Amino acid sequence: MRIALAQLNPVVGDIDGNFRKIRSAVSQAREQGCGLILFPELALSGYMAEDLMQNAGFLNRLEASLEKVRKESDGIAVLIGHPSRNPGHGKALQNCLSVFRDGKCIANYRKRLLPNYDVFNENRYFEPGDKPLVLELDGVRFGLTVCEDGWNTKFSNAPGLYAIDPVAESVAAGADVIVNIAASPFAYRKAAFRERMFSKIAAFHGRPLLYVNQAGGVDGIVFDGMSAFFDREGRVLARGAGFQEDLVFVELEGGVSETAESIPEENSLIFSALVCGIRDYIQKIGAKQVHLGLSGGIDSALVAVLAARAVGPENVTGIMLPSRYSSAGSVADAEELGKNLGIRLETIAIQEIVNGAMSALSGVVSEVRGITEENFQARTRGLLLMGWSNNEDSILLNTGNKSELAVGYATIYGDMCGALSVLGDVYKTKVFELCRWINREFGPVIPQNILTKPPSAELRPDQKDSDTLPDYDVLDGILEAFVEGALAPVEIAEKTGENIELVEKVLRMVLRTEFKRKQAAPILKVTDRAFATGFRFPISSGWRPEIH
Amino acid sequence: MRIALAQLNPVVGDIDGNFRKIRSAVSQAREQGCGLILFPELALSGYMAEDLMQNAGFLNRLEASLEKVRKESDGIAVLIGHPSRNPGHGKALQNCLSVFRDGKCIANYRKRLLPNYDVFNENRYFEPGDKPLVLELDGVRFGLTVCEDGWNTKFSNAPGLYAIDPVAESVAAGADVIVNIAASPFAYRKAAFRERMFSKIAAFHGRPLLYVNQAGGVDGIVFDGMSAFFDREGRVLARGAGFQEDLVFVELEGGVSETAESIPEENSLIFSALVCGIRDYIQKIGAKQVHLGLSGGIDSALVAVLAARAVGPENVTGIMLPSRYSSAGSVADAEELGKNLGIRLETIAIQEIVNGAMSALSGVVSEVRGITEENFQARTRGLLLMGWSNNEDSILLNTGNKSELAVGYATIYGDMCGALSVLGDVYKTKVFELCRWINREFGPVIPQNILTKPPSAELRPDQKDSDTLPDYDVLDGILEAFVEGALAPVEIAEKTGENIELVEKVLRMVLRTEFKRKQAAPILKVTDRAFATGFRFPISSGWRPEIH
Repeated sequence: MRIALAQLNPVVGDIDGNFRKIRSAVSQAREQGCGLILFPELALSGYMAEDLMQNAGFLNRLEASLEKVRKESDGIAVLIGHPSRNPGHGKALQNCLSVFRDGKCIANYRKRLLPNYDVFNENRYFEPGDKPLVLELDGVRFGLTVCEDGWNTKFSNAPGLYAIDPVAESVAAGADVIVNIAASPFAYRKAAFRERMFSKIAAFHGRPLLYVNQAGGVDGIVFDGMSAFFDREGRVLARGAGFQEDLVFVELEGGVSETAESIPEENSLIFSALVCGIRDYIQKIGAKQVHLGLSGGIDSALVAVLAARAVGPENVTGIMLPSRYSSAGSVADAEELGKNLGIRLETIAIQEIVNGAMSALSGVVSEVRGITEENFQARTRGLLLMGWSNNEDSILLNTGNKSELAVGYATIYGDMCGALSVLGDVYKTKVFELCRWINREFGPVIPQNILTKPPSAELRPDQKDSDTLPDYDVLDGILEAFVEGALAPVEIAEKTGENIELVEKVLRMVLRTEFKRKQAAPILKVTDRAFATGFRFPISSGWRPEIH
Repeated sequence: MRIALAQLNPVVGDIDGNFRKIRSAVSQAREQGCGLILFPELALSGYMAEDLMQNAGFLNRLEASLEKVRKESDGIAVLIGHPSRNPGHGKALQNCLSVFRDGKCIANYRKRLLPNYDVFNENRYFEPGDKPLVLELDGVRFGLTVCEDGWNTKFSNAPGLYAIDPVAESVAAGADVIVNIAASPFAYRKAAFRERMFSKIAAFHGRPLLYVNQAGGVDGIVFDGMSAFFDREGRVLARGAGFQEDLVFVELEGGVSETAESIPEENSLIFSALVCGIRDYIQKIGAKQVHLGLSGGIDSALVAVLAARAVGPENVTGIMLPSRYSSAGSVADAEELGKNLGIRLETIAIQEIVNGAMSALSGVVSEVRGITEENFQARTRGLLLMGWSNNEDSILLNTGNKSELAVGYATIYGDMCGALSVLGDVYKTKVFELCRWINREFGPVIPQNILTKPPSAELRPDQKDSDTLPDYDVLDGILEAFVEGALAPVEIAEKTGENIELVEKVLRMVLRTEFKRKQAAPILKVTDRAFATGFRFPISSGWRPEIH
């Protein structure tokens, strides 16, 4: 049997647009002689529509469009994910998989394992299903599962999170082929892990496995696609493109011709994810132009490279906003980078506005503090960058990294302005690593000086990040053990080899700056645990991680 | 048996501080001859610690402190909510209720119904328990339940959300008295509803009911307290204070002496909730001073009144930031209000900074648009108000209301600045109603002119809100039907009597301004559905609620 894996990049909520994509894929698959086409989880609405799932108007439109999908199934089985009203106790909806053929619904399965951790919140909307479903199509019995249903096996990273294994149950119920339709967000250590896991599941059960994933960005979440077809020995015979829409055709009974190439290395994955995240955010909100503050530092340099790649250099403006503390070197570095990328460059001096603010405030306070002046600089830049947004219909990209967001080394409403936080889940050490990778991969786009000079906010004379923060390799080790690792202070000290006082000092910085992260722009998630979606606590929390 | 209901106002995460409060309440109850003291749900950590619940250091500390609670139980049964590690499949924790007496744990019950809607996210952390527990103490059999366990009855507003009724099960298992320990957030229609519901439950089962709730604010969530003791006929014999800590003593076998007064009216409840929300936010983050931009409009007038009540007028500064579009009347109104309240007043002119920004931007663009100038004014005010924060160690209160937040009639990083959104869940029509209530209740604090002049942002000559928005009574009706009611456009048109084009126009404004709400300050929740916690969707959503 010839089968199509339709790896959609839906616009969440654009039900009509998503339907047109589905109809087009069905017709291509029919022309290619496919007997079956698979779409991702919640394909009509896109994953995740959040609280639109609770609105009557939205649900009515979804149901009407699902009827239209049913009518497109002449001569081909169309397998698709969608919400449906729950007829029983519990939440209003279930997360369903339906199969239509020749205008009839021939299978309706309800997702049994509902993830409710990290970015997931499925218990908010859905009631789980309670039984496996095996569908026979042209003599082949397909065991149907949806995303999380495939993750509670001994091959996953959290076996035992649930009491049942829906994949094993579908095999026990007679499945010849395992199907998993998904909307599985990207994290850079997860992409290869996930493929190995499904490979082991296929081999363990001795069944081919069809996996189809959503692709593309939805605000801060990026779906990597990379749908795949595994044979009964777990070999990957076909794989969908990374981070973009794709339609993959596979032959269920075909012998092994050749196996797919391996998944790209981590830096390449992160680069692609960030580019996809910017591209889809801008495109899906209907914008075209982006801009960013270009300081001459490494964070804004990386965002400029990513933005130029995502929307084209002709749609990117780098705005330099020097103050009296900006070094001549920084301005020159920013200009060189801008020229290398072919983006538009503008310069707006901020000093006069900062002086105006200092003078206005000094009329009502006894003394203007240094920290106030530093923040006036950052916020004046924010004011002008947002002015550019209003005036030029351009979207401001935020350039702050995960390390500074973690310890609050950022000015709220200042350098924290922006529609999308591009690097908010990328530690500073990783920013350096990515920049070096970019220069190796694409030639020396990023000036060497940006890679080698010591990081500085340049908000007062001779300021260095290291005046305030530990070295970034030390800081990032502690942060990763706390945020991603969820370790206790003493465990962090052991793991990183740093002294406990330093560990506690860093954690206190994290804990007292949650108020800034609560108002941060949506963050492109690339690690297992990004701020906001994966790590959050009350601002007024009184927890202080002292052990003494 | 004499029983104490210990209605704590914990600092979430301050385990040591919360333990001290618990120890003090236990000693008072012992001195009063109580045989039993009840604490709220998750009392040691406070509700809700969010992702701190996943951190090893936090959990270790919690467990050590629970041991200390056990040791405080000489001669009195101490009933308390706390998380505990889940020994079985599933999430790492369970939401438990333990009873200690004479240093021993004599009961351990696991919450069975875990809310995961609106502000609740308990499936993120907890695995549900699976059986009722009845504890016999001095011959009385107590049926133990935790918060949501009491809400799946035919008397609730959503019967059938779960398949079981833990209260009925505990009665079937022999309970003489029903216990419910809770952390139940405030909503103004919910307070009286909740009490009627528990009253009906008590009467239906013919059992006395002991209800103890958390009190106080945690970021945007306010817990109203109002713990209560219901007799077997459902009469309220005692009630804890609203919105603050309280220790209530009740006699289980006492005859009816007199019943408690009825719960205050809605305006009074909302007023108290907002005051509590400000007071606890400021106190729990360790701050003292607050300030706000005082425009002469009704929103900032209401916030000034609430702030003065919450932290004392001596700790409130109202800052007037007039521009060339500010009317003389507005400045005079703001001054009169400030004098009535006895708060500090300051004036900082913004025009020169706005001119500086206009001039800086005009150097790089062909023409500065009107909208850019309007936003420069709002953002210059934000810049200066945040400068006051940095310089004077004062917390900026945001003054935007729910109506303008809904339709995006607000400038991000401008008038949306602030640590806490005081009115982000109060519609404009409700703002007027509260102000009139305040003047009736406390005398004419708010100048009449503020109550009667047409609302205006004063960002351009003769600007009125009504140039851009429908009248607020029309707008608020549509918004409430959409946000709280989750209705479809055609249903909203029917319900409100407005034409469908206007309904769709308003909904489109809501849908395209989600990006602003995603970066809004935490909002004090007072309705059934506040933005962010109760209503959210992807910024890049393509849903357009047109029905044509």
